[in-house]
Amino acid sequence: MQGAAPRGPLSGFRILDLTAVVVGPSCTLTLAEQGAEVIKLEPPEGDLLRKLGGPAPSPDMSPKFIHFNRGKRSIAVDLKTEAGRAVLARLAERADVLVTNMRGGALARLGITWDALRPRNPRLVFCVIAGFGSAGRHHDSPAYDTIIQGMSGFAAALGRVLGEPRFAPFVLCDHITGIIASQAITAALLMRERTGEGQAIEVPMYESMAHFVLAEHMFRRTFDPAGPTGDPRVMNPDARPIPTADGYIAVSANTDAQAFAFFEAIGRPELKDDPRFSSVGARFRNVEAYFTLRAEALRSRSTAEWAAEFRRREIPAMPFQSIEAMLEDPHLWESGLLRREVHPTEGPMTGLGRPVRFSAAGPDELPLAPRLSAHAREVLAEAGYGEAEIAALLGRAVLPPPA
Amino acid sequence: MQGAAPRGPLSGFRILDLTAVVVGPSCTLTLAEQGAEVIKLEPPEGDLLRKLGGPAPSPDMSPKFIHFNRGKRSIAVDLKTEAGRAVLARLAERADVLVTNMRGGALARLGITWDALRPRNPRLVFCVIAGFGSAGRHHDSPAYDTIIQGMSGFAAALGRVLGEPRFAPFVLCDHITGIIASQAITAALLMRERTGEGQAIEVPMYESMAHFVLAEHMFRRTFDPAGPTGDPRVMNPDARPIPTADGYIAVSANTDAQAFAFFEAIGRPELKDDPRFSSVGARFRNVEAYFTLRAEALRSRSTAEWAAEFRRREIPAMPFQSIEAMLEDPHLWESGLLRREVHPTEGPMTGLGRPVRFSAAGPDELPLAPRLSAHAREVLAEAGYGEAEIAALLGRAVLPPPA
Repeated sequence: MQGAAPRGPLSGFRILDLTAVVVGPSCTLTLAEQGAEVIKLEPPEGDLLRKLGGPAPSPDMSPKFIHFNRGKRSIAVDLKTEAGRAVLARLAERADVLVTNMRGGALARLGITWDALRPRNPRLVFCVIAGFGSAGRHHDSPAYDTIIQGMSGFAAALGRVLGEPRFAPFVLCDHITGIIASQAITAALLMRERTGEGQAIEVPMYESMAHFVLAEHMFRRTFDPAGPTGDPRVMNPDARPIPTADGYIAVSANTDAQAFAFFEAIGRPELKDDPRFSSVGARFRNVEAYFTLRAEALRSRSTAEWAAEFRRREIPAMPFQSIEAMLEDPHLWESGLLRREVHPTEGPMTGLGRPVRFSAAGPDELPLAPRLSAHAREVLAEAGYGEAEIAALLGRAVLPPPA
Repeated sequence: MQGAAPRGPLSGFRILDLTAVVVGPSCTLTLAEQGAEVIKLEPPEGDLLRKLGGPAPSPDMSPKFIHFNRGKRSIAVDLKTEAGRAVLARLAERADVLVTNMRGGALARLGITWDALRPRNPRLVFCVIAGFGSAGRHHDSPAYDTIIQGMSGFAAALGRVLGEPRFAPFVLCDHITGIIASQAITAALLMRERTGEGQAIEVPMYESMAHFVLAEHMFRRTFDPAGPTGDPRVMNPDARPIPTADGYIAVSANTDAQAFAFFEAIGRPELKDDPRFSSVGARFRNVEAYFTLRAEALRSRSTAEWAAEFRRREIPAMPFQSIEAMLEDPHLWESGLLRREVHPTEGPMTGLGRPVRFSAAGPDELPLAPRLSAHAREVLAEAGYGEAEIAALLGRAVLPPPA
């Protein structure tokens, strides 16, 4: 914390990261982006995502792994060995946070519980990202992203729109729950500033996602007498970017002023006196006709022409972008979200910066994602291991850094 | 902070909440659930979501408003009046956080800027949830949830799977960005514990969602030479809950052990020697055939029978649930995520509890969502206004509480 402006609001906090794939790495990515020191403790074979997240120049540096693990250091420890578990215990003693998405049974077998670690580090914040909360009957059920999408209403909501349930094309529940966990951890660190004590946190995927879905879609089932679930405004099957002559555009003409300006823009000013479209309530009741009308009108001109026209008339609208187009949007390069970088082993690449700006912290000049166990020596040395001890551990309980 | 266990890790922090609809209320809901005191400053006509979020017993207490605004107090202030802006300034002086999703121009006109507020409250954390970051060319473009879904790759990812871009049936980008903002605010409060100073935070929806989407789907475009975007594992058109005789089930048979146990379960043990399915890599290459085979096999028995069979064989699987079924899942009632409550004006209702558990904090016994301006008197009194001043404000710059 001395010298230059801290890299982020979490500079100076040390996170021991026993997570893998997406739910945990998404959590600790946020913490790393904000300046926390994240030590990623991997199994000797590495985080599954290293291989599961797509091809890369190296066989274990998948693009998905790269993006979720910026700014972290890696040490691969064999927790099946007693020496490995001793390394973990030593690292946990000097950590501010231990976060894991390992299943409860595995944690208990390895001695990774708050009760076990707390006596030697009462300031530790111990966060378990679980599939299901421990207070409910599913507590030991398996949890993968698609299982949670299937249970928590994401697949159901898509099913209401598409006619058959399906998964969103993202590791969506993992990713969102990881962000939720990063907030909970930050809150527990903040509480510790006042109490001096750590605590245990449980972040259950299922409950977190049920909360997410039901806040939007419990809808009229909330009250007595209960009405239907599902907000029809967002569950409308026609809720999509509108086709133009050469692409698609997203238009949000919601208020009367916006809708009437839209009718002018498409050359149908008389529609503002049409009882089907003359008020917010009328357009909502006739949403299908309204959407059809919009879709028919926009086919005549290009996306760029409509975007200019709508901007001139102060109608909220922006072009739809493919993922490829987004990667070329100058805005994302200007804001530092996209950046060209050179990874020490993977070569030139496009990286992702921190989306959030903090006035009291510098930009996030994070190192890129680590090779497996790349920081084994330095992490051990910082934890107080001597040269001889490190030499004895490497190649046995701890994977040596790659050459 | 005296007496009983704090309600949550953020007990004692005061949030001045100038947000509306979903993106801001999702942020301050998380803070309220964790014990922060949230003062919701609404315009005299109320947060749009009060009416926009579906019908309720009262015309301005929509179910969506109810779920996103638990644990908050409301005061409706007319910021078009000088007296109203003076109330805002007084409340900002004694707040730990001011958070808003108003557009930059409107904020400047109302004098709600960090530069204006900081001299009288240098400890203030000032958070703007923006559509687009101020460093990029779209910075003053309009941002609604569907516009951001259309630009940031959510609509594009669904389009890759469905053949045509469409919006996810959620106010998805608002909702996720709100959670991201709650973490950023908590981090800035934590930093303040060390520096003694507040700061300004900018949380841009577009950058936040571009980060979310690209971490998963930049994929092979990350490297040189660039390959295609999009993770085919999650963008597979057949990635959906599998139909059974009476419903659907989500199955995650990923490892060899799980896949082979699955082949046993469906009475096709020979498939584990089939070169198309005999390894993780083989099943990935033949994912369409694998998914078809799974779909054909499961039609023969009920969801409950398959769930029991898979559980016995340690194959990760759980039944698909409709939103209605989720509302009857005993797990969610046992864990306190769902709860029967009685709202003072809306009557008996089903409410949502906090999904995250903190060992050092009590359960979240939050009051239910407020009527418009219900707490005007007490908020003004706490800010030091005398009885006569309050009487002079009510009915002019401040909406009186409902009778």
